[in-house]
Amino acid sequence: MTDCIFCKIVKGEIPSYKVYEDDKALAFLDIGPVNKGHTLIIPKEHHETVLDMPDELLAHISIITKKIAKGVMQGMEVKGFNIVQNNFKVSGQIIPHYHIHIIPRLEDDGLKTWPQGEYKENEAEEIVKKIKNSI
Amino acid sequence: MTDCIFCKIVKGEIPSYKVYEDDKALAFLDIGPVNKGHTLIIPKEHHETVLDMPDELLAHISIITKKIAKGVMQGMEVKGFNIVQNNFKVSGQIIPHYHIHIIPRLEDDGLKTWPQGEYKENEAEEIVKKIKNSI
Repeated sequence: MTDCIFCKIVKGEIPSYKVYEDDKALAFLDIGPVNKGHTLIIPKEHHETVLDMPDELLAHISIITKKIAKGVMQGMEVKGFNIVQNNFKVSGQIIPHYHIHIIPRLEDDGLKTWPQGEYKENEAEEIVKKIKNSI
Repeated sequence: MTDCIFCKIVKGEIPSYKVYEDDKALAFLDIGPVNKGHTLIIPKEHHETVLDMPDELLAHISIITKKIAKGVMQGMEVKGFNIVQNNFKVSGQIIPHYHIHIIPRLEDDGLKTWPQGEYKENEAEEIVKKIKNSI
């Protein structure tokens, strides 16, 4: 897409700190890192969210994500990492071109996981029905 | 693994609110949902993190994740969702059996994304070298 910043990175019109590239995908540093070494993986083709991604491309990206995540963990000498992929504006997706975040984690980085709630009686059963009927 | 809670769910020794099942994977509600409809997807085989997952299984899970996420979004009538997968204790992984979170998002759920930093001069170049050499 003409005005997509990630498509411009793919075309080389905007520079990036590349860590990996193949014919279908590209990985580069997030310039606003949550922690040092925070890496983004994108398909070269423009797709907005996971729902638009062809199966074959999703499969390819899932396999290289393992490889790149291992490199991030070893290269940054950290003991773990999060893989995060946001879909649609409400989720925090800022660039509407599918991307995976690999976020290296440190014991003392102070990042907090989201608080968890619970279900009332029979609520989970109702929700299962709604989701199952939509899959 | 004998003492793994997710392996027990796979075997039916612990009940769960299942939304999807096939020969290789299972999806069920997180009983401590960040938002209603928060769903977990796991491989039936025990693997601790993404780094231990066979490529073929990763590919399969990435494809069904799209399908299940679409069901969660439609079933819960939300406008977006996060896909999160934590690796190792430091990242917030509590159950050491690979699992993907699908978290439906609402405009007013108050969940905050992690704060972003920046790189000092030449720092990004050094980090790229470290990661590239480890991939």
